[in-house]
Amino acid sequence: MPYIPLVEHLPGITGLLEYSKDTAAPIRELTQILLRGPSTLTEGERELIATVVSKGNECKFCTAAHTAAADVLLGEHETSEKVKQDISTAPVSEKMKALLLIASQVQKGGKNVTAALIDAAKKEGATDIEIHDTVLIAALFCLYNRYVDGLSTITPSDPDFYQSLGERLFKYGYNRLPQGYDHLKKNGVEQH
Amino acid sequence: MPYIPLVEHLPGITGLLEYSKDTAAPIRELTQILLRGPSTLTEGERELIATVVSKGNECKFCTAAHTAAADVLLGEHETSEKVKQDISTAPVSEKMKALLLIASQVQKGGKNVTAALIDAAKKEGATDIEIHDTVLIAALFCLYNRYVDGLSTITPSDPDFYQSLGERLFKYGYNRLPQGYDHLKKNGVEQH
Repeated sequence: MPYIPLVEHLPGITGLLEYSKDTAAPIRELTQILLRGPSTLTEGERELIATVVSKGNECKFCTAAHTAAADVLLGEHETSEKVKQDISTAPVSEKMKALLLIASQVQKGGKNVTAALIDAAKKEGATDIEIHDTVLIAALFCLYNRYVDGLSTITPSDPDFYQSLGERLFKYGYNRLPQGYDHLKKNGVEQH
Repeated sequence: MPYIPLVEHLPGITGLLEYSKDTAAPIRELTQILLRGPSTLTEGERELIATVVSKGNECKFCTAAHTAAADVLLGEHETSEKVKQDISTAPVSEKMKALLLIASQVQKGGKNVTAALIDAAKKEGATDIEIHDTVLIAALFCLYNRYVDGLSTITPSDPDFYQSLGERLFKYGYNRLPQGYDHLKKNGVEQH
């Protein structure tokens, strides 16, 4: 049960973004820029970073939500499952492996990102901006995971919830849905 | 030495906010709302939350910067030093002790925030919004600390740097300084 009074049908982050709309606006904007803005990393790759960090923080809601978003973007379920198990053997590029390893160290703490990890990513062709964005996406999900679990929000057990949320994040991104999208305003899917 | 090419005279977070201006805008906005917006917690109390979390994450730049901001706001140096040493004996209200204990658990991980810690804060008069804001401020500084250290930014050793930064955060908050404030544009102080 959440520690503060959240709307009952809005689980995980969705109820928090509704509870505090003034802080939700810049959080949504930052996420939209990082995960859906122009980038040499695909949207699917950026969702994998969010997934790996959320898994590391053991945040079930965020892990399931961003796994679903990655799966919709990548068109398959295998990659997201494998990066959560073992980055080094997952079916992603060597550059993505190096970036995901950086993200998983950011999750543990900023000082864990060593010059050797950065050099390895650069050797595989990672640009400065890709490294910057990887660190900031990982840091942002350390915020999200703590926000969601620190206030003890509800984690739905129904896989259909996350499938719907993943499709909504694929189609509409992280901005608040404009008025007129009432057909999506069910099961909390509209609020992420 | 930073892992990406940052402007040399802009240490810590200041160079990152200059490097990536599109993501800097919502980060600044979120921080301004949480640390300087309307609240029943004083600005000094909110800076103490930032200080305790940054100390927990061992981020020297953020710890020194927010210690300085808290000191300017509180008009003394004792409180910030004591909350960093031991929250339970620090010269703050019982409500603030309970909120700082919640923040220090958020720093470790969202799941560490127990119902007992929340009940203790409510018993001391903490409101739902104060609890929400404490968790989100703590989560935000888990982002900042990882961003600053994950990219190996420079940590100045000169205490005058942090004193100037603390005064700038007191006078102008977290928004980007408007044009015409060129007298502040030295030593990186303008960019936080």
